[in-house]
Amino acid sequence: MSESDARLARLVAPVSEGLLRMRQILEAQVAESSRAVSDMTDHVSRFRGKQLRGALVLLAGDATGNATDEHPAIAAIVEMIHLATLVHDDVLDGAKVRRRVACVNERWDNQTAVLLGDFLYARAFALSTDLSSRLASRVLSEATRRICVGEIEQAALRYDFELAQETYERIAGAKTAVLYGAACELGARYPGGRDEAGALLAQFGNSIGLAFQIIDDCLDLVGEESVVGKSVGNDIEDGKLTLPVLHVYRGADEATRAAMRDVYTGPGLQQRLSVLRSVVDLQPGIEYALERARTLVEGARARVETLPQSRARDALCEIGGYVLERSW
Amino acid sequence: MSESDARLARLVAPVSEGLLRMRQILEAQVAESSRAVSDMTDHVSRFRGKQLRGALVLLAGDATGNATDEHPAIAAIVEMIHLATLVHDDVLDGAKVRRRVACVNERWDNQTAVLLGDFLYARAFALSTDLSSRLASRVLSEATRRICVGEIEQAALRYDFELAQETYERIAGAKTAVLYGAACELGARYPGGRDEAGALLAQFGNSIGLAFQIIDDCLDLVGEESVVGKSVGNDIEDGKLTLPVLHVYRGADEATRAAMRDVYTGPGLQQRLSVLRSVVDLQPGIEYALERARTLVEGARARVETLPQSRARDALCEIGGYVLERSW
Repeated sequence: MSESDARLARLVAPVSEGLLRMRQILEAQVAESSRAVSDMTDHVSRFRGKQLRGALVLLAGDATGNATDEHPAIAAIVEMIHLATLVHDDVLDGAKVRRRVACVNERWDNQTAVLLGDFLYARAFALSTDLSSRLASRVLSEATRRICVGEIEQAALRYDFELAQETYERIAGAKTAVLYGAACELGARYPGGRDEAGALLAQFGNSIGLAFQIIDDCLDLVGEESVVGKSVGNDIEDGKLTLPVLHVYRGADEATRAAMRDVYTGPGLQQRLSVLRSVVDLQPGIEYALERARTLVEGARARVETLPQSRARDALCEIGGYVLERSW
Repeated sequence: MSESDARLARLVAPVSEGLLRMRQILEAQVAESSRAVSDMTDHVSRFRGKQLRGALVLLAGDATGNATDEHPAIAAIVEMIHLATLVHDDVLDGAKVRRRVACVNERWDNQTAVLLGDFLYARAFALSTDLSSRLASRVLSEATRRICVGEIEQAALRYDFELAQETYERIAGAKTAVLYGAACELGARYPGGRDEAGALLAQFGNSIGLAFQIIDDCLDLVGEESVVGKSVGNDIEDGKLTLPVLHVYRGADEATRAAMRDVYTGPGLQQRLSVLRSVVDLQPGIEYALERARTLVEGARARVETLPQSRARDALCEIGGYVLERSW
């Protein structure tokens, strides 16, 4: 177990029982009598990852004194939606390795990955309709819609080097922060009412999620595939402009800017990430992005520190630190 | 307007007010403030098609004395789910033309088509959570799951010339009949209770839907692109074995069988449909499949004839005839 994994295990210890229950539900939900489907869900469950979003549902419930018997099911639904977005993301990104396991689109094909993602979404929504309150169905279908809009906007804004930081954050927020926000909000509010705690935790989740995405974007530039556990340099291949690159581009002279644009747009260019590193020093951009992520994490921490002290609240306070340091 | 379109317009006349309301809801739902998204939803709404599934919700409601103010919204949700499956299907099939309009995956790219389908699913589920009863969310998320399982099984069974008719019908049923069944069931049952009417109409919808899929599979073999309004020969290109072909294959000698297999599997072969037509007479298969579709339609008709006479019931009785004769 890496140091980062050990740290996460300590952080989620206050909700370990709920996580166990969540995993049981998740396993039962992705099981299918159809062999063709179960082959794939078996495969996909191997990259179940850190299950941070599910843990956030449980921690937010505990930290706000709102844990219910249904929280583990909500956590499982959130994880299934996340898994669905991952499977479809891998189609979109053309990724080959996810958490050291071949992606569905690589092991089978793109078509199958699309269907498996659809299956996971449908399963998640079906499970949410069995809960005693409709709040989870409402919050999560709206979150899913916003995730899709963010992804579509991101695709439309590829190769746009003039992208404002605000726009980048809005899109990165829609892509990633929305599900963190929804997980924390549901933890604090489900089955309903409790608007104030819901809003506080939603803001916490949004900030942590945006920080997570910014770190992800940095790892795609400077991470090592063997450490990060997934392909790197994808954003460049896909023409996605991320915060570190946008910052470096803003501060570069026109010749460097032109060279950077060529790295993204040059037809048939190989190893674009290595080429980009050779035409410009990315480090100032990485530092700028990390600083932004740190500010977000501090703001999120200050919010949950207003809650009464508890093991779950302390875990939420520390989760930002984990997000900043993962795989670094 | 073609004769077939005019016939459908007459059939759905008893629910024209509900259809108008359904279209208004649909338009409002796919509208998005994001320009990138609205460009695509505008495009996709151009292939809105016959909206037969939405009409079935309304007709089933009227025919069983169960029309509510919420039926048009349910019809809109069913149509949105259908639209989502179409958009993803086009990615899966590599189709280029859908209802004489370029498919999303052709006009933009596969990635965008995946996201647009996800957006439509999410929008549909979000709308269903606003209804007064959860029945629509439950029935439709379960239907969506079954559609995905059917598609995944179909993909796993490509190039399987030994496919039993029962398996073909189970998969074609999951792919197509499930949403017809769900539409009719919700029309008859929503907001809840009314199990008997629900089961009767679900069976009606399932039979009509399976007949529809069988006809679709025939059109893919013998239809003309200009009449059908979408590419033909897709099933052969994708290795999908359909009822007419399976029937012909079952009755063929070994030499013909080998030739048929080669048409599907020969690497780089062009115009597979034309080649298939040249190695075997497909007509007996088409006739066999049409006979099966006719039997299904007659069974469905007999079911709804047990309902009290009304304009809506009579329309349901005739809808099978429309399905059998469309674009023929």
